[in-house]
Amino acid sequence: MSVFTPVSAAQMAERLKNYSIGSLVELQGILAGIENTNYFLTTTHGRYVLTLFEKLKLHELPFYINLMAHLAKHGVACPAPIADVRDTYLAELNGRPSCIVTCLKGEAVMAPEALHCAQIGEVLAEMHMAGQTYDGRMSNPRGPAWWTATAPEVYPYMSADAVHVLRDEVRFQSRHRFDKLPTGAIHADLFRDNVLFDGDRIGGVIDFYFACNDLLLYDVAITVNDWCVTDDGDIDSDKARALLASYHAIRPFRDEEADNWGVMLRAAALRFWVSRLYDFHKPRPSELNKPKDPAHFERVLKKHVARDPSKLWL
Amino acid sequence: MSVFTPVSAAQMAERLKNYSIGSLVELQGILAGIENTNYFLTTTHGRYVLTLFEKLKLHELPFYINLMAHLAKHGVACPAPIADVRDTYLAELNGRPSCIVTCLKGEAVMAPEALHCAQIGEVLAEMHMAGQTYDGRMSNPRGPAWWTATAPEVYPYMSADAVHVLRDEVRFQSRHRFDKLPTGAIHADLFRDNVLFDGDRIGGVIDFYFACNDLLLYDVAITVNDWCVTDDGDIDSDKARALLASYHAIRPFRDEEADNWGVMLRAAALRFWVSRLYDFHKPRPSELNKPKDPAHFERVLKKHVARDPSKLWL
Repeated sequence: MSVFTPVSAAQMAERLKNYSIGSLVELQGILAGIENTNYFLTTTHGRYVLTLFEKLKLHELPFYINLMAHLAKHGVACPAPIADVRDTYLAELNGRPSCIVTCLKGEAVMAPEALHCAQIGEVLAEMHMAGQTYDGRMSNPRGPAWWTATAPEVYPYMSADAVHVLRDEVRFQSRHRFDKLPTGAIHADLFRDNVLFDGDRIGGVIDFYFACNDLLLYDVAITVNDWCVTDDGDIDSDKARALLASYHAIRPFRDEEADNWGVMLRAAALRFWVSRLYDFHKPRPSELNKPKDPAHFERVLKKHVARDPSKLWL
Repeated sequence: MSVFTPVSAAQMAERLKNYSIGSLVELQGILAGIENTNYFLTTTHGRYVLTLFEKLKLHELPFYINLMAHLAKHGVACPAPIADVRDTYLAELNGRPSCIVTCLKGEAVMAPEALHCAQIGEVLAEMHMAGQTYDGRMSNPRGPAWWTATAPEVYPYMSADAVHVLRDEVRFQSRHRFDKLPTGAIHADLFRDNVLFDGDRIGGVIDFYFACNDLLLYDVAITVNDWCVTDDGDIDSDKARALLASYHAIRPFRDEEADNWGVMLRAAALRFWVSRLYDFHKPRPSELNKPKDPAHFERVLKKHVARDPSKLWL
């Protein structure tokens, strides 16, 4: 159950007077959410999603909400925030920052084929292109400084072998600098559960609350590490090539990006290994959802370390 | 035929590289247009409309395009302009200003019922509310100054009786001032052919190229004069009340607006009578479409002059 902050139909009907999207037909809590309260909001004009933010504060939200609005303005399939009569996207509701966004069609595809991966490469490149003119700024809260500080906190819970791998990887990454790689607004969490497919076509990308400014190639690596991964942590090279080729057709990779692909795949695996280790071994008392298995990204990282990354490139 | 400026598939495919809406599937000229070149543009991501502006110049377009973008951001069903990689909506194509907007679903309803009129009142009020925060400015090029200057140009073509009616009305309107009535961005041409219905629900409002800043009540009068009119120029009071009541539920009319309703209905009829007289008797050499019958709005105006307007109010 993830309606943490209930909203009554009467409250919603009243709130809709601030918007230009018709009057209330139905308000239905969404149980699947983890961090926020979400409702399917049906009005006389269509379907929307109402979100009440349970952790993020009002001042933290504009980067994410304005990024979605920017991408939607460029035709990227993502939730489009709806502005109210004051021309703002965010308003307080029952003590929480809240916003209304358009409801996308489709469902997550958890066993994607190469055809899905090709579309993911396309939408990721389109987001990166459209994001180049986005003027919001947010440094990556899960970047090298974060994992360097966090890794020692989880060593006590890990096997000596795993600590060795993790410590080596943190050190390996610290020796690399990527000053010449293109940066921009990145999604930073484009996992399979954050893309809806309407049949075989993308209905939209959701959940922009890890978005930040960082290396575009890092976003590609995060995405490949989820969409193109096999159960044993290996990468399916057909899927990876499909994703990279369709990305490349829209935003051609630079030589420096090709050169850094292997390091970047490892960085993306490291980031999620560390965050999963932390969430697993040091869960927040308020955390309701079951922590995800850290061992998955340990396997992914080890496979990356062992392979010749150029074999995973275009 | 109204593809005045052809665009090839190769040109379109190339142009789409500036956007984040996928690659070209089909480009199909729209024959129904009058003033501009329009194409249905189908991409791998969906359906859009490409417009090349044949008369309006690049510097004249931002008011209209930004208004559509503003309304779309508020969830109003209207074409949403798509920004390109430079983050702009307008670009030159084959010597014409051009833009790509989302393609709305539905068809015009030329014989509306009260249920359609109620939805029109709603969408008009929603546009007026959302438009209150629009910062574009455009004075009405078809306002009192224009009709006062234009009427004498068509007197030579009119019967003595009609000249008498027209001259009296111009004089009548000149004695009224509306300083206390609410103003804002208005559509100014919300005729039946400018609204698409998808079944019995509004699919969207189109054709914002007469939009301007003016009295909101004037926009309501223009709309009632078309949606609620009978063949003999009378107003169907059931339809008018349906439209006004649903408008009023979203933006409550002020007492001063009720007091001026009759004058405003007459002003709205006058504006279209004069423009149709002008287009009929003094057509531009380049005009391809058959001018509309001016006598229709002469009848509408005479009925308005003859009636007690309070009987048409809520």
